Amino acid sequence: MTKRIGIIGGGQLARMMLVPGIHLNLEVKVLAETDGSPAALGATMVGDYNLVEGVREFAKTVDVITFDHEHVPLSVLRALEAEGVEVQPPSRALAFAQNKLHMRQRLTELGLPMPAWAEIQTADELERFIAANGGVAILKTPIGGYDGKGVRVVRSAGDAADWLTADGLAKVGGSLLAEEKVDFVRELAQLSARNASGEFAAWPLVQTVQEDGVCAEVLAPAPNADAATLSRTAEIARGVAEGLGVTGVLAVEMFEARDGRIIINELAMRPHNSGHFSIEGSVTSQFEQHLRAVADLPLGSTEPRAAHSVMINLLGVDDENDFVRNYPAAMIAHPTAKLHVYGKSARKGRKMGHVTAIGEDAQQTLATARAAAEILRHGN
Amino acid sequence: MTKRIGIIGGGQLARMMLVPGIHLNLEVKVLAETDGSPAALGATMVGDYNLVEGVREFAKTVDVITFDHEHVPLSVLRALEAEGVEVQPPSRALAFAQNKLHMRQRLTELGLPMPAWAEIQTADELERFIAANGGVAILKTPIGGYDGKGVRVVRSAGDAADWLTADGLAKVGGSLLAEEKVDFVRELAQLSARNASGEFAAWPLVQTVQEDGVCAEVLAPAPNADAATLSRTAEIARGVAEGLGVTGVLAVEMFEARDGRIIINELAMRPHNSGHFSIEGSVTSQFEQHLRAVADLPLGSTEPRAAHSVMINLLGVDDENDFVRNYPAAMIAHPTAKLHVYGKSARKGRKMGHVTAIGEDAQQTLATARAAAEILRHGN
Repeated sequence: MTKRIGIIGGGQLARMMLVPGIHLNLEVKVLAETDGSPAALGATMVGDYNLVEGVREFAKTVDVITFDHEHVPLSVLRALEAEGVEVQPPSRALAFAQNKLHMRQRLTELGLPMPAWAEIQTADELERFIAANGGVAILKTPIGGYDGKGVRVVRSAGDAADWLTADGLAKVGGSLLAEEKVDFVRELAQLSARNASGEFAAWPLVQTVQEDGVCAEVLAPAPNADAATLSRTAEIARGVAEGLGVTGVLAVEMFEARDGRIIINELAMRPHNSGHFSIEGSVTSQFEQHLRAVADLPLGSTEPRAAHSVMINLLGVDDENDFVRNYPAAMIAHPTAKLHVYGKSARKGRKMGHVTAIGEDAQQTLATARAAAEILRHGN
Repeated sequence: MTKRIGIIGGGQLARMMLVPGIHLNLEVKVLAETDGSPAALGATMVGDYNLVEGVREFAKTVDVITFDHEHVPLSVLRALEAEGVEVQPPSRALAFAQNKLHMRQRLTELGLPMPAWAEIQTADELERFIAANGGVAILKTPIGGYDGKGVRVVRSAGDAADWLTADGLAKVGGSLLAEEKVDFVRELAQLSARNASGEFAAWPLVQTVQEDGVCAEVLAPAPNADAATLSRTAEIARGVAEGLGVTGVLAVEMFEARDGRIIINELAMRPHNSGHFSIEGSVTSQFEQHLRAVADLPLGSTEPRAAHSVMINLLGVDDENDFVRNYPAAMIAHPTAKLHVYGKSARKGRKMGHVTAIGEDAQQTLATARAAAEILRHGN
């Protein structure tokens, strides 16, 4: 019997996991936060993932629990695991996705490439770190940050005075994480998957382009990456997955530093924005692979379907445009572009959908994806 | 506003239409025959499509009605159209899909390539047709046949004595259809789509391999088809679509006769088994194109994603094997094969799913698809 899969969280990632569930006839259920979530079609329960009672009830309807996001409290997951519920990735892995300080500590122990970093509890510690790292640091709250939130560039302890109060520290687990401000030439992401039996597969390295801390574009594969880099980043991903005991899809966001170093920035233990290209661009999409991996089925091929894939995010332009209304113009102008809209109500800056183009010519593929996205944003 | 699409019928075609509905955020509802249908995930109503009351109620929840099959009575559709319900394809087009005799009459008027055929009401008429066509004929019931049912090879009127009784004729509309038994070298299918505004797009011609009257394999594009043939079959499809007023996906099944003629065999006015390859093999799948067409959105590109696509049907081998249980073996052996299972209970001969492989080498692509299908059928 194939395992019934329960996804906690009804966002666009859960929504896109419904698709391979349909094709493969895997039973996929969703515990959504609210009615009318992006994954509403597959929502079999609506409830608060912070409360163990509801999650336990949901878990009884499936064979394995997985995630649309990393926000389920570890206490909830540990309680369920103690009762025999299978959770993939398991709480011991997710702990590192939920706490950036623990992630830095463990990955350092594993010998994986880190920026300079330090645990910070006082203004003095922060001043010393800044002084030792060229007068600037990236200060992060270890828990609760995403898409640029909970991250600050600081040049003195005064820049973080509010976070360094007893109250501020208590809210984020007692410590802050200071990191070297890496002088990077670009940002990369290495997508991979590992199933519960330990099989591992990596997609080709991609380049991500961030705007205001949010992913704007993904180029797959990363342009001008040599074979040594591709092999090195895949091995980094394997090291993280095996070292932390990650199952399912793992995204390792990295910096390519001006001095040539490849440095791990962030981790996500679930399908990730940097892997949306794989729906059309890979033999096996990250969403299918995640279902295979958490159900402990053999992994699919991560080979590309074309020489180049480009994914452009559709961030809300205002509180009116749902992007669907510009379909006719975009579809006429770009019949090869693949349009994805998540069914969220419009809000400026919100991740509302994405566009993917794949092809043999890098520039033309990029131009198609960008042009289709632009028409969806602003009409033609 | 994009039109809300209602699909009558909850089979695998409706199921696979749910996928582009998710990606494009088109609202897709399904009127299913039973609970637990292949399209149950999208079923918003369960009811009998033969009864106008239920279909009318379903129609009120959507902006356009379309189909998973051709069995909805024309009387039901005409009643709804008279009340202002939009039906795509409209009843005037579906009438030709539901009655093979009317189809032959109309396509002959349109000058499209037909086998020799005749309307048959008596044993004498049938004997004359057989004598005029080399001593053999294909006899069809004009309505109600599919997958080899309602079709018989006859060499004398005695072979159809049961169909030629007053009762037998009454059941099928009063007449039978006799057709020349075409001496064909292979069977072909031309998939196309036309939206309500009249935009038309054809996929490359495919070859279909039938076993016992049921589609077994599809090769896309049809091997060794020259440019003149490809252009001719696309123009035949356009002639059918425009001549009959078809909207949505149209499959034209054809014979390639030994004497070189291309002859129209059957029509289907909906996504069709011969087009399943397009999920992976084409920029726009037949399921996405059908939604675009019936919602009167611009059509997507029908360009291939690879030089060759092969689709192999998974027909039930017995009443036990649901194919899913052989996933581990098939996935390990063929990580590039795309597996599709429809969620039907196992039954010998039933269309339970399909496997698609795409690639640059025709023989290797065929071998991969066949081998994966064989493991799903019988284990490894």
